[in-house]
This record gives sequence, C-alpha cells and structure tokens, in this order.
Amino acid sequence: MIRFYNGRVLESGVITDHEVWTDGAKIVHVGPSKEEKPVFDRQIDLKGDLLMPGFKNAHTHSAMTFLRSLADDLPLHDWLFDSVFPREAKLTPEALAAFTKVAFLEYLAGGITACFDMYYYIDAFARVAADWGFRAVICEALSANNDWSVIYDRYEKFNHMNPLVSYQLGFHAEYTASVDMLKFISEAAHKFKTPVWSHNSETKAETDECIARHGLTPTKLFDSLGLFDYGGGGFHCVWLTDEDMDIFVKHGCYAVLNACSNAKLASGIAPLKRLTEKGVKLAVGTDGPASNNALDFFREMYLINVLAKLRESDAAAGDPALILDAATRGGALALGLADCDSIAPGKQADMIVIDMSKPNMRPVNNIVKNLVYSGNPSNVRLTMIAGKVLYENGEFFVGEDPRDVYREAEKYTRRIVER
Amino acid sequence: MIRFYNGRVLESGVITDHEVWTDGAKIVHVGPSKEEKPVFDRQIDLKGDLLMPGFKNAHTHSAMTFLRSLADDLPLHDWLFDSVFPREAKLTPEALAAFTKVAFLEYLAGGITACFDMYYYIDAFARVAADWGFRAVICEALSANNDWSVIYDRYEKFNHMNPLVSYQLGFHAEYTASVDMLKFISEAAHKFKTPVWSHNSETKAETDECIARHGLTPTKLFDSLGLFDYGGGGFHCVWLTDEDMDIFVKHGCYAVLNACSNAKLASGIAPLKRLTEKGVKLAVGTDGPASNNALDFFREMYLINVLAKLRESDAAAGDPALILDAATRGGALALGLADCDSIAPGKQADMIVIDMSKPNMRPVNNIVKNLVYSGNPSNVRLTMIAGKVLYENGEFFVGEDPRDVYREAEKYTRRIVER
Repeated sequence: MIRFYNGRVLESGVITDHEVWTDGAKIVHVGPSKEEKPVFDRQIDLKGDLLMPGFKNAHTHSAMTFLRSLADDLPLHDWLFDSVFPREAKLTPEALAAFTKVAFLEYLAGGITACFDMYYYIDAFARVAADWGFRAVICEALSANNDWSVIYDRYEKFNHMNPLVSYQLGFHAEYTASVDMLKFISEAAHKFKTPVWSHNSETKAETDECIARHGLTPTKLFDSLGLFDYGGGGFHCVWLTDEDMDIFVKHGCYAVLNACSNAKLASGIAPLKRLTEKGVKLAVGTDGPASNNALDFFREMYLINVLAKLRESDAAAGDPALILDAATRGGALALGLADCDSIAPGKQADMIVIDMSKPNMRPVNNIVKNLVYSGNPSNVRLTMIAGKVLYENGEFFVGEDPRDVYREAEKYTRRIVER
Repeated sequence: MIRFYNGRVLESGVITDHEVWTDGAKIVHVGPSKEEKPVFDRQIDLKGDLLMPGFKNAHTHSAMTFLRSLADDLPLHDWLFDSVFPREAKLTPEALAAFTKVAFLEYLAGGITACFDMYYYIDAFARVAADWGFRAVICEALSANNDWSVIYDRYEKFNHMNPLVSYQLGFHAEYTASVDMLKFISEAAHKFKTPVWSHNSETKAETDECIARHGLTPTKLFDSLGLFDYGGGGFHCVWLTDEDMDIFVKHGCYAVLNACSNAKLASGIAPLKRLTEKGVKLAVGTDGPASNNALDFFREMYLINVLAKLRESDAAAGDPALILDAATRGGALALGLADCDSIAPGKQADMIVIDMSKPNMRPVNNIVKNLVYSGNPSNVRLTMIAGKVLYENGEFFVGEDPRDVYREAEKYTRRIVER
C-alpha cells in the first residue's frame, strides 16, 4: 500500500486536502487521514503538491517518434506522400517497439497515463505496453486495401491479453475507406455492441471530397451506415458541421481535439465554442510526434484554449476547467477506461503529482488555470499507472535504461532514414 | 575558469562539438580542446548536451506574476480596466520586488538570461536584478500623465549603476501618449542618440483609433516625430501595414513578437511571412505573466511558428531556425546587448545547457527543430549569466531560497487581491 499525504487532491474538479491510499492497482481511500492506518509500503509526502488523475491521450500514433523533426514545415500533401508514407513502409516490428518506447517515456515524463494508439504492428505495440506497465488502448486503423477480417480475432485477442491493454474498432479515415469496408466494420460493431473511431473532418479538403463522393459529410456517411450506434467518435473534428455535431450528441460520440497537430499542419482550428454549445463530449489527443511534435498535454490544453480565443476573436472564449476535464475524465471515458476517470475509492490508481514548487506555478491563485495556462512537463513530479510509480523526479522505472531505449531508436531511425 | 566539454555547441546557427571556456563574466575559448589547459575552477561534462546562447526576453512586465491565473478568460477591456489596473494601483516597491523574483526564477528555469522589462518601480526592479545577477534592460514606459522629465536622470542612472542593468527610452503606447510627450521623448532620443520603444499595433482597435486621431498608423506617427531616428522598435506588431514595415526596415527597428499574449488576448496573429519578406528585424518576448501566462520561450517559439502556418493556411509557413535566431541573437541586439548575442571568444557568458537526454529531444534528427517544436523548460539543465551558474538541475543559485521568494510573493498577492 502507498499513502499520499500533506498535499492537494484534484477530485472530480474540486481540490481537497485529502489523503489518498492505494493498494495494488487500485485506490482504496480518499478522504481525511485516519487514526488507524495500515502498514504502508511507502508514504509519499506531497509537500503541498497536487495529486490529480493522469492525462489520457485520446489520439496518437506513438511510434512516429522516429519522424520527429524530420518532416516539418512541408505542405500537408508533400509531408504525407514524400516524407511519412515512404518511411513508414520501412518499419519493422522491432523498430516500432523501439520508437514506441521513446513515446512512452515522453508520456510518463509529461503525466500521460494512457494512450489511444492507431498505428502499425499492434502486436509489438501491445507487448511494449504490457512489459512496461503502460496503459494502452489500441484503435484499429483499417483501410480499404487491408484484410478486414482480422478485426474479429484482434478484438478478442487484445481485449483479453493483459489488464493494461485493450482494443477498439476503428478505421483510418473516409478517404482511405470503401463503403463495403465501412459496412463490414459496422456489422462487427453491432455484433460486439462497441464504439467505432476514425480520423474525421481533419481538413477542409477531406470533408469537401467526401461530400463530392457521397453527397454526405464524413459524419453523416458514417452515421448512415450505423457506425456510431454504439458510440465512438472522431479524431480532429476541425470541420464538423452543426448537423454533424447533432449526430455526435445523439450517439454520445466524442470529438477528440488535436489542436497542436491541426495548427502545425495548418488544418484549421476546431470549433470549440460551437462544440460546447451543442454539448458534444470532448477528449484531447496529441496526434503523432511527426505532426505535433511534442507529446505534451500541457501544451495541448493551452493551445485548445488560446486557439478558441483567436478563432472567436474573443479573449473570453475557451474554458480551462472544461478542457482539463476533457484531458483527464473525458479521455478516460472515451477510451473505455471508466475505472480510470477520477481519484476515488475503487478506481485504478492512474495518477500524477504536479510539482507546485516550480516558479511557473506561483503564486497559487487558481490551480486549474495554472495547469492549463502556465504548466509544462517540468511540473510533473511523479507518474503512477495501476498503482505502480513509473516515473519520479526525472527517473523512469520501466525496467529499461532510457539511454538504451534512445540508442535502439536512433539505430532504427538511421536505418529507415538513410537506407 | 569554467570548462564545458564533451557536448554540442550552437555557434551562430551552426552546431559544433567544440569546447567552451569562460573566465569571469566572459567566454575566452570556443574551439577544439587544447593540449595545454589552464587550471579550471570547474569542468562541466556536457555528456552530449547542447550549450547555446540564453534566450533574450525582448518584451515583458516581469512583476505581473501576481496576476497569474487571476485575470484570465476576460474580454480585453474588462481584463485591463477591471482586473489589471485597479490591482496595479495597489503595488508597492516591496511587492514589486517579490513578484519580480518569481519571474526571474521562471526565466532561469526556462533558459532566459535577459529581459527587457517595462513596468513600475524600476528602482526596486533594478535592485533585484543587480542583487541576483540577472541581466535586465529597463524599458521606460512613459504615459502622457507621468512626469516626463525623469527620463534624463534615469537614462544616466540606470545605464551606470551595474554592469547587468541598462535602460532604454520608451513609452507605453500611442493611446496613452500625447504628441507633446512623444516630441519630448524624441528630443531625448536625439540628445542620447538612442533607440525608442513602445507597444505598437497590438490590436486592431488600437491602430484604427490612432488613424482616427492622427490620420496615421502608430508607426507612421512615431516616424513623423523622429522617434525611430536611432532605431528601437515595437512590441507585438500584430497589425503593422506594409508601409509600417518599410519604416521599420529603414530605421533598423525590431518587431518584437509576443505570440502567446496575442493569442490569449485574442489580439490576432502577427504577419510573420510578410515581416520576413520585408526583412524586418525580429525578436521574441513573452509579455507579462498576466496575459501569457507562462514565461516560456519554448512555447513562444513554437507558437510563433504554428500560428504563422494557421494564418497563411500553409503548413510550410514559419521558419524555426529564424525564430530561434530571433529568440537569442535578435533579442540580444534589440536589447543593446551586442556582447551577449552568441557563443564566441570575448562575448559575455550568458549561456544555457539543453538536456538532450529527455525523451522529447529524441531521436536527434534536427536539434533546432527539436528545440522549437518539441522543447520545453524541462530541457533546461543549466543557466549561466555573466559567467555565473544561477540555475542547474532544478536548483537556483541566487542567494535566496525559492520557498522564501514564494512566501513573500503569496503574502503581497493576498494583500493586493483581498484588500
């Protein structure tokens, strides 16, 4: 058992001075100190720091670390077709594992305790998550030219391999799908009674071309095929229409915001004001490191808010508390991790400690606004997943030396880039 | 003497594997190791990390830390008139010193080695800089209702009090100036043959109202009064016209970019593409912590670049190397610190060490892009000003315990906020 004491706790949006005790993977006590205490394996003096739920990265392509700083400042089409696709074609499972580890280290150092990952070689990916103790939800990324039938086996396999790993149905995007494939996925979704995810309305061209092809926006097309009958949602959602948002609300779908990626690829600014007016559920994602390039939820929350202000030409636009909630609770619910959504007895102990002794957190006028508007990864003192401390004060506890991780990643990067 | 070795050095935009030696406040050797070495007081093994010039914060109101997270998400007018001005009226020199220290800690932790500060109680401000060893350039902030005559004494006093402190002429902005005051400042600028600075074209309303009052943009008005005859420049520069830019180029004036503040206050996006096409000199500033709210040059450089992409709807817009240069060399030259602009023999030892062992810096495909697109303050391992290490591995060496600094700042914040 581990005891966190002498600090602040962010519980369901409210900051308390409670203690938090964990036992194994779970939180067992949140409340005032008790006269009678169990024997703790470790007692962590928070020293006034903030214990809060870990960030849930609701859209990413983790292993794209190898493309970081290699494919910047290019027009979107050149970026994808000249810089990304030819290099991805050279990936191997070993290389993917090495690149994924770099991302997991960055997640841990930045307080991210789960990711919703859409990429290649998911066996290798799931193995790294299970071995390291990182919580990972795999999002299927079917395209028309794949073997669709794999999703039945994968659904069973990856939802039962390890308590930290799960799998959800998904496809890459409308522009790489066929209607037959979408129908096939919809059937599977109905069989399993499960959500479906995809990139959706990331760019204006994508939505325009979908309308030209089908006479429908991507969201309307997906809805017409029953893909959202058990929920799910879309990544990016920059160009959703009002009617699209109504469909999201009807099915309880999540719009996963990826502000940094949308800015760097000049895709646009998601309509946060309209999304919240309509009541669309929100989560936050970094997207992959080739298009962001950091995997930094502080920057992501910050950018969502200030871009909303620029979009509306209104300094009062944006809502830090709402976006912090989307980055933690919203993401957990989107990923199907309802037991990781908050700090409460019985929940999984996926928590982080925010160092309030750094100058960017001072003075302490409003902790939520400090987190969103002036926080950065140097404020993450500790990251715990399923009750295990995987990162603390700059050190990683994942069973591998970061220097070895970097050496492997650099080796495979050189092979792919220089070949 | 201090020796930095076994790493990388960013010299005038090129990355080398040189050694760097300092003696007192200055850099004395940049080059390959030498057979015969002096006796060093300290030898710092860079372990592959990057030694680079410190960031120069070319526009700030440091002491506004007390308003951090207190005055967010308000329309610009309410922010200024309801939240900022009434609280600033309660400032005292003691409070200002306490709030300034919080900002200086954040500068040091984020690799900022100098600031160009425009605020109240400059005696108290200069005292903190001199006592702590932080390099500070005071920017005068006259308004029409001040006693203008002070600038002559101040110019002499603050340019001779301490090698780390200097003073430049300036005024708050056109909308708080009178033409008589501007003429008075112009006379002083001609007497001292010195640059003049102000907020300039931050918001559209500001430029529109100036045109309504004077038939001229702020830049044209200032130029017509000879204010730029010895250079200087403007803070923000979001709404500069092509003709304004020509005036900047003619006089070698600097446009100081403040992307984070402009986004948070919904003021707009500076026309980076046009500014660079015209050849306007650039520097970077955080503005004050009430409108940013972080004092983080990584976020500032990142945002300048990605907002340029959004503004132009072009993922190829922006220029990380140019903005890194503006954030270091450009800022130094703007602030009149020509001896702090680069790592070269004879220059002041104002340098920082970037920790390349953090996962957000891996793999190392392109260090400049890593710094701009994925760097954050957790990458700052060491900050040196005038040859003295003031920050290293999370610890500050400024002669005061940060906990005491925070306690004082919280005390004065409560007095101002709750009174």
